[in-house]
Amino acid sequence: MGEWILAGQAAWIAVDWGTSNLRAWGIDVKGEIAFARSSDQGMGKLTRDAYPGVLTGLLSDAIDSAAPMDVLICGMAGARQGWLEAPYLDAPADLRSLAARGVSPVVPGSGLAATILPGVCVRTAGAEDVMRGEETQLLGLHALQPGFAGLVVMPGTHSKWATLEGERITRFSTAMTGELFEVLRTHSVLRHSLQGELDGPDRAEGFGAGAAQGIDAPQRLTATLFKVRAGSLLAGRSAPWCAGFLSGLLIGAEIGGQRDWLSGTEIPLVGSTGLCTLYAQAFAMLGASTRIVDATDATLAGLKAARAA
Amino acid sequence: MGEWILAGQAAWIAVDWGTSNLRAWGIDVKGEIAFARSSDQGMGKLTRDAYPGVLTGLLSDAIDSAAPMDVLICGMAGARQGWLEAPYLDAPADLRSLAARGVSPVVPGSGLAATILPGVCVRTAGAEDVMRGEETQLLGLHALQPGFAGLVVMPGTHSKWATLEGERITRFSTAMTGELFEVLRTHSVLRHSLQGELDGPDRAEGFGAGAAQGIDAPQRLTATLFKVRAGSLLAGRSAPWCAGFLSGLLIGAEIGGQRDWLSGTEIPLVGSTGLCTLYAQAFAMLGASTRIVDATDATLAGLKAARAA
Repeated sequence: MGEWILAGQAAWIAVDWGTSNLRAWGIDVKGEIAFARSSDQGMGKLTRDAYPGVLTGLLSDAIDSAAPMDVLICGMAGARQGWLEAPYLDAPADLRSLAARGVSPVVPGSGLAATILPGVCVRTAGAEDVMRGEETQLLGLHALQPGFAGLVVMPGTHSKWATLEGERITRFSTAMTGELFEVLRTHSVLRHSLQGELDGPDRAEGFGAGAAQGIDAPQRLTATLFKVRAGSLLAGRSAPWCAGFLSGLLIGAEIGGQRDWLSGTEIPLVGSTGLCTLYAQAFAMLGASTRIVDATDATLAGLKAARAA
Repeated sequence: MGEWILAGQAAWIAVDWGTSNLRAWGIDVKGEIAFARSSDQGMGKLTRDAYPGVLTGLLSDAIDSAAPMDVLICGMAGARQGWLEAPYLDAPADLRSLAARGVSPVVPGSGLAATILPGVCVRTAGAEDVMRGEETQLLGLHALQPGFAGLVVMPGTHSKWATLEGERITRFSTAMTGELFEVLRTHSVLRHSLQGELDGPDRAEGFGAGAAQGIDAPQRLTATLFKVRAGSLLAGRSAPWCAGFLSGLLIGAEIGGQRDWLSGTEIPLVGSTGLCTLYAQAFAMLGASTRIVDATDATLAGLKAARAA
């Protein structure tokens, strides 16, 4: 395996503890990855008491848990319903203060010294918003591209749009685009048009049609969504076409409805490659250029930068 | 009971057979209701073979099923996945032709002569839409208010906006507003903010705030939806407030995004009183006046008008 030897080199542990998953990386003194571990024990599955055991269990074959070791954690582990609440920083927020504003849950019977980084929030009445995990990716983006200032888009279940100025988040907003796709696909009348295999040659065409309509008329989303169903009833659209159209409508509406955020700079898209590619295509319809940044790269760069700060 | 005697007076049967429910009314020679029956045996629960038995079973204690009797049916019984498909009329559609374009399923071993009215569709590419049942209510609205021409809004799981000119539907569109509320309330992350009793004194305030935001920025719906969650996390909003806010956001976005349909005429709202009252409140924020028309009154008036035509 060789991992035991590599594991011996870890100087500290970087952890991304989200709603669905937990990932941990041993980082050596040079900042390289010494080992990586992951599990499906995300916040959504855990009671408060379970966190220490899950963490030590995940790391047990990689490190000597009794030896002193720092663990820096970002994500939903710091939510109110997580391990230990790490109160939000208020936006505009200086991301250099992330580690200093972290909280330290106890990991009994281990040498692990854990710190959970805070999320960032907007408290302005009517514009309230929250993020947990993306702030670390934004700090990572700054580390990867120090001079960057402008809009960053982070596609996902809950997409984040943030304006970054160096190490500061000046504002951000969340769009429920990915989750809307999932609940509509699974639970609404549109599911009848989205049965069976959803990947197919028609999907790209459906996406293009949906994205065009979403960008063009984001204000009509509650109505255009029904076109998924009507299109399959009347025009015989295939399930892949309908899936692409629904995805395009939602992503297009997210982008079209927030086009006032665009500033002409190249937009970093932080997320999975597949989803970011769809966003890139939709942004291109508005003439906006984008660049895909791997989400894991950004998370790791952010945890390293937080530790260094 | 007295119903047997009343039932003897029915000259024909009016039926509204929807996705969730089945309702039947015996109509006497003067056009008055002789009896009413209902059941939960909507299209969603039935196989094609089950329809005749459900219909005769529902009417068995009210009429002599062996005697000749016309039954006029509107709604989802005429869908492809219903009893017998009644092909759509194309919009613009003349509603006087509804009965002539109906289909006649056989009701074996009974004297019932059933006719299912067609729905109406829009086939224009990219604007495809369908209705089944609402066309009958629109014909009923014409019967109740013969001179009416203008926008009619029919709030519901799938809200319909239609432009009526006498007995013609010139155009219409469906908004998935009611279903969006249900799937988001039940299946999305917003459910955490919508636990427990949702009726409470805060609900009206939440509705007003949501409707204002939805009307003002319908194009930002994918983002403002998340404010439901953020508002409860950061501002301690109650579950009734959040429920009102979500409902207001969605209804407001439906209305705000289609404000180009408004023509200055008083808008008939055809639906349940509770839901129509919310729509009336939101339309009033745009300065539009409305009038609530009971959905059952419209359905019955429409079935009578279709029979008379």
